Amino acid sequence: MIRDLILKNRSYRRFNEEVDIKLETLKELIDLARLSASARNAQPLKYILSYELRRNLLIFPHLAWAAYLRDWSGPCEGERPSAYIIILGDTEISRFLAYDVGIAAQSILLGATEKSLGGCMIANIDREGLRKDLEISSRYEILLVLALGKIKEEVVIETIGARGDTKYWRDSRGVHHVPKRSLDEIIIG
Amino acid sequence: MIRDLILKNRSYRRFNEEVDIKLETLKELIDLARLSASARNAQPLKYILSYELRRNLLIFPHLAWAAYLRDWSGPCEGERPSAYIIILGDTEISRFLAYDVGIAAQSILLGATEKSLGGCMIANIDREGLRKDLEISSRYEILLVLALGKIKEEVVIETIGARGDTKYWRDSRGVHHVPKRSLDEIIIG
Repeated sequence: MIRDLILKNRSYRRFNEEVDIKLETLKELIDLARLSASARNAQPLKYILSYELRRNLLIFPHLAWAAYLRDWSGPCEGERPSAYIIILGDTEISRFLAYDVGIAAQSILLGATEKSLGGCMIANIDREGLRKDLEISSRYEILLVLALGKIKEEVVIETIGARGDTKYWRDSRGVHHVPKRSLDEIIIG
Repeated sequence: MIRDLILKNRSYRRFNEEVDIKLETLKELIDLARLSASARNAQPLKYILSYELRRNLLIFPHLAWAAYLRDWSGPCEGERPSAYIIILGDTEISRFLAYDVGIAAQSILLGATEKSLGGCMIANIDREGLRKDLEISSRYEILLVLALGKIKEEVVIETIGARGDTKYWRDSRGVHHVPKRSLDEIIIG
């Protein structure tokens, strides 16, 4: 059931870094994005895959983690992602991306969830630094980084509180809480 | 398997309009979007549902269909969508939408596919006309319309030709062909 997959597909930020992710696995995930919808069918998205420590170490410092958790600067060594997928926009194809990035990212993360992996979409990126360290051509716009790994944290969905606060938070046991709006609140007609 | 669902989830534009879609079904689909990722967890998306002919007739004239099919102006009566989901951005929550729209739309359409329905994301909208006919407050930005119905056309994926043309096309039997880039072309490192 797609609902079960969507429920399991939370934003995870702590992983068991010892568990490798194979190139073949990443390719299967990219294939899901490839087969998803693209505005005007232009397919301007391209992908950089990283699954070895050497390259992972070049990516990690350029990512900002969980803005609402002010006393946490990101996963420590051993709990970092085992792999990354960097989503790029090929400006030689089109600068019009419409909703392609979200569509592709969702397909990839649902695929990862089915493979018992977890991940997180990270848009808060030091793009200049990442471009330099990975030698990414100016032809490509850096859009989104997907962090992937074997999940090592618990994430729970909650109903939004009376104050209407949507900020996620982490409790003393390390459980990550995510308040979601109700169906009644988001359907307006 | 998510891959099977993604393969089945093509952009469909002709439907068996006699087959109704219930409000309850649309709510189940919105719930999938509700449970999907949202940038900073702000959840700025709101939804208008349409599943009765009276309202459907107010929406249809404001949508542009399949730009590449120049001799086809959209589905004829009897082959039009049975329902629509209009995705709005609530500007009182946030004007920063990041990739939320694509994520939500993909969740909804994968859910529809699982329910043996098909649909199409339509971003080419006469927004002013739609806003007027549906009396949509200026508080909401009109982002995307999802057309939904019981599928009445065949869509096939093809490898992109030597000329690299990504335009979809319809053959003499009415089959809709969609050329997709290869995995080798979209993985650049």
